[in-house]
Amino acid sequence: MRLRNKPWAQKLVKEHPEAILNEPNIDEKINWEERFADFSKPLAIEIGSGKGQFITTLAKQHPEMNFIGVELQTTAAGMILRTKLEEGIDNLQLMCADAANIAYYLPENSVDVLYLNFSDPWPKTRHEKRRLTYKSFLDKYRKVLKPEGHLEFKTDNRGLFEYSLVSLNNYGMKFEHVSVDLHHDEDEIAARNVETEYEHKFAEKGNPIYCLHASFVEE
Amino acid sequence: MRLRNKPWAQKLVKEHPEAILNEPNIDEKINWEERFADFSKPLAIEIGSGKGQFITTLAKQHPEMNFIGVELQTTAAGMILRTKLEEGIDNLQLMCADAANIAYYLPENSVDVLYLNFSDPWPKTRHEKRRLTYKSFLDKYRKVLKPEGHLEFKTDNRGLFEYSLVSLNNYGMKFEHVSVDLHHDEDEIAARNVETEYEHKFAEKGNPIYCLHASFVEE
Repeated sequence: MRLRNKPWAQKLVKEHPEAILNEPNIDEKINWEERFADFSKPLAIEIGSGKGQFITTLAKQHPEMNFIGVELQTTAAGMILRTKLEEGIDNLQLMCADAANIAYYLPENSVDVLYLNFSDPWPKTRHEKRRLTYKSFLDKYRKVLKPEGHLEFKTDNRGLFEYSLVSLNNYGMKFEHVSVDLHHDEDEIAARNVETEYEHKFAEKGNPIYCLHASFVEE
Repeated sequence: MRLRNKPWAQKLVKEHPEAILNEPNIDEKINWEERFADFSKPLAIEIGSGKGQFITTLAKQHPEMNFIGVELQTTAAGMILRTKLEEGIDNLQLMCADAANIAYYLPENSVDVLYLNFSDPWPKTRHEKRRLTYKSFLDKYRKVLKPEGHLEFKTDNRGLFEYSLVSLNNYGMKFEHVSVDLHHDEDEIAARNVETEYEHKFAEKGNPIYCLHASFVEE
């Protein structure tokens, strides 16, 4: 969702180039080895991090991993940055950038887990290409994911979930886990679920959270 | 669900070998040309027809097609038979038989649509092989379906639906349509939905009906 522009966020983003990449040029090679203490750790990336509740919580839970949060809106990215700085979350880097460019920003075969949480559903058919589970995005995820890596997708939007099941299947992705009501599951995946700020509000109303884990199959 | 045994049903099944095949021997070649007025019409088959509301309604709606209802329980099969006879549904044939044997009973590449409606969920992991969307059943459906044919699956059971999405995807089937709430859709598939007797009762309580259409991909 669109946030009201906050000048402090713009300022904070500009003051911390060591923690957040602000609309990097696609020709520029990003030196991730320099940005993380140990870039050889497993890497997780979230596309569309919003205010960052999910990625900051996960990064604190897993010091043995590295995390990258990608968020297009500067105000939202600035809010994640503030959390990162205040709580000293060193294994988290941020990008204020368009998800369509991630294959330029990250090395091939470098990502272990790619998270898509409550992405914009773009319900109109003419906007299909903007959905983050459209095939052109899957092409990019396939490039940056390791062969053994996988995608974890959550949404409360029925239309986006149904669309994504068909899109990922038709792309040839292999499903590992599906839930049509994640918050009422009693398995290990539900137990380790980290909520986004949006998810928490939505689930409180009793609406189902849909979830899909899938990987790319080697040809 | 298990029905109480009804002697009249047993009797009716025995009296109408022209309309229902009663536990046919798998070595016996069934003469479908003889059993249908015109076997060249498109063919639909339902695995687990219950009391037959779905298959008899569909057969009456589509005189341009042939239908086969497969039901293991003689009492249920006898109830469908009674409807067929009373209403003169000539384009419907019945089988009191085990779905595991359908590849023996039907010619290869003969079926246009295969329906699985509200199949037994067999929730225990040790019973996975009995679920009608387990891979050994998919092998059989692939044999009898035409290359351009497809499977239409409906269930109210969350666990069976989630399992089936993964099972059909992992088998390499191509998803054509997914709905996690068929009765609240406004598309063409929802508009032509024919309810089973069980579906009607369940949906009245406001619970979602899940639906998946998928086809086998030629290798």
